Amino acid sequence: MNMTTLRELGEFGLIKRIAEYFPVQSENMSGIGDDCAILPFNDKENMLVTTDMLIENRHFLLDKITPYELGYKSLSVNLSDIAAMGGTPVGAFLSIGIPSKIDLLFIDRFFEGLKFLSGKTHTLLLGGDTTGSPDNLVINIAVIGKAEKDYIKRRSSAKPGDIVCVTGNLGDSAAGLKVLLENVPYTKLTKYFIRQHHMPRPHLKEGQWLSKQDGIRAMIDISDGVESDIHRIMESSLVGAQLEMDKLPVSKELNLAQQQFSWNIWEIALNGGEDYCLMTTVDPLKYENINETYLKIFHHPLYKIGTITGHTGKLELYLNGRKITTEKHGFDHFKNM
Amino acid sequence: MNMTTLRELGEFGLIKRIAEYFPVQSENMSGIGDDCAILPFNDKENMLVTTDMLIENRHFLLDKITPYELGYKSLSVNLSDIAAMGGTPVGAFLSIGIPSKIDLLFIDRFFEGLKFLSGKTHTLLLGGDTTGSPDNLVINIAVIGKAEKDYIKRRSSAKPGDIVCVTGNLGDSAAGLKVLLENVPYTKLTKYFIRQHHMPRPHLKEGQWLSKQDGIRAMIDISDGVESDIHRIMESSLVGAQLEMDKLPVSKELNLAQQQFSWNIWEIALNGGEDYCLMTTVDPLKYENINETYLKIFHHPLYKIGTITGHTGKLELYLNGRKITTEKHGFDHFKNM
Repeated sequence: MNMTTLRELGEFGLIKRIAEYFPVQSENMSGIGDDCAILPFNDKENMLVTTDMLIENRHFLLDKITPYELGYKSLSVNLSDIAAMGGTPVGAFLSIGIPSKIDLLFIDRFFEGLKFLSGKTHTLLLGGDTTGSPDNLVINIAVIGKAEKDYIKRRSSAKPGDIVCVTGNLGDSAAGLKVLLENVPYTKLTKYFIRQHHMPRPHLKEGQWLSKQDGIRAMIDISDGVESDIHRIMESSLVGAQLEMDKLPVSKELNLAQQQFSWNIWEIALNGGEDYCLMTTVDPLKYENINETYLKIFHHPLYKIGTITGHTGKLELYLNGRKITTEKHGFDHFKNM
Repeated sequence: MNMTTLRELGEFGLIKRIAEYFPVQSENMSGIGDDCAILPFNDKENMLVTTDMLIENRHFLLDKITPYELGYKSLSVNLSDIAAMGGTPVGAFLSIGIPSKIDLLFIDRFFEGLKFLSGKTHTLLLGGDTTGSPDNLVINIAVIGKAEKDYIKRRSSAKPGDIVCVTGNLGDSAAGLKVLLENVPYTKLTKYFIRQHHMPRPHLKEGQWLSKQDGIRAMIDISDGVESDIHRIMESSLVGAQLEMDKLPVSKELNLAQQQFSWNIWEIALNGGEDYCLMTTVDPLKYENINETYLKIFHHPLYKIGTITGHTGKLELYLNGRKITTEKHGFDHFKNM
């Protein structure tokens, strides 16, 4: 009799267990264990597939998010996975389970939000499934994308000595969640965080450009938080990492919030999820060249936040040059149940 | 202000509304409105994509279906859509929202059922999303398949004069649902129906073979019931149809149930959903030849159940040569809310 519980196993344990049930024994396919699955497409390109489920009262609260934002975010979280592999989205497939409390006006606004991002990123909505739901609104989107075979970036390519970088500010989305959950009064500042939480921009252009640069090794999107997501790179690449907390890029708004609310913004930046920018590891000999061009195109640096080490599985954190320990870890969907 | 409610609009109305939001303006793509979306793949083949969501207390009851059956059925309903286009499945993507009441033993059995059908049909589980759910178990599977361009069958190709055929018995699955909902005592007979309801076989081989036959025109899988699904062919092909109720193929078990329980098995066969066999329309000049070979391969005839007519949108029903009317219609996920 199996005595392990799902909670003990945790989300990553469950994913490992599923991967054991369904081993992919094909050289040109790659399944469970990265942001997207990779399938052969044509001589030059591979197909990328990713899917994400959002459930009311688990991933969002109907009295906190607008239907427009929800439509946008449902697609955005999937596009972020495509971005993390250096891909270009092609089509999206929406399954939606609609409880009787939802009206048509809500549905229309939801589709307007989805359509906005769909149009902006040339992701066609090509199909799906509509059904009733007894209780909670349930949304699942699957996105198909493509990427040139030679340029696809995986989590498993990091090497000791690589510089760990991110493509955007960290913690704004988690700050937005904090505002919502702790009912911090709405101001211009707190609304900025909520917007980052509800309408994260998928870093598609950054992912596509980075994937083509010689010297970019592993890549992942930051969905569960830097600390969680660096662990995934560490596990896939069999390496360790050290991160410099004071180098984590944070917005001027988050700095302002530190003064106003005495928030520990380094904790928020490290553990908060759903920033949906990209984290990449870069050959140290090529970083300067890459960053120089990156700066010209994207108008901010490819932020250095740490280094990949040879201490497999070990994450070391530094604050102003001093080694520190931290208790918290990124979000686990079953351990937080 | 929009005064239409979702219930008034209904499932098909909603799908039409979504299709208006997201028109697909590409010659070699086909989106909302068939069993699968069609995307370009390589010179010879197209890619097929379909997705289905199953929500506890809406599509299944945890005290009625075993986890093994649920794993099997979650994949089967998607494979049936691939079958309806004449395709071959390639990979599946599972999103699962797991409430705290579900234990690991359930999850293991679920994956065993899924793995059984996945192995049998060579459909690799390539990825997905695992998350907690506040209340109900939620399952979404997306399947990617492929089909030779020249052989893909659509709903929109029926022509007046075509013979309407089905590839299997009708009503067994609906009889199983009836047994479960009306708490009919379990016997060998009633358990047979429950099995048909919980473990429907996707007609992949039939779909693949039929799609290659010259003379096979429209094709669809029977998910919502013959009456509902013939309407979809009628709407897509701008035709009408007449069905002969007494020609609907039913199992010897359903005939037995008619005697034992006085069920109206023609109503069950016509309106009951989830048989997941295929319905196709066939050039009348080619039916005999096709049926002769079909019979040899599949050991039963390609059952004739009616004819396509030129009376666009009109469905006429006959019982023993007499025209009849029927009140019931197939399942609508919002009108039955």
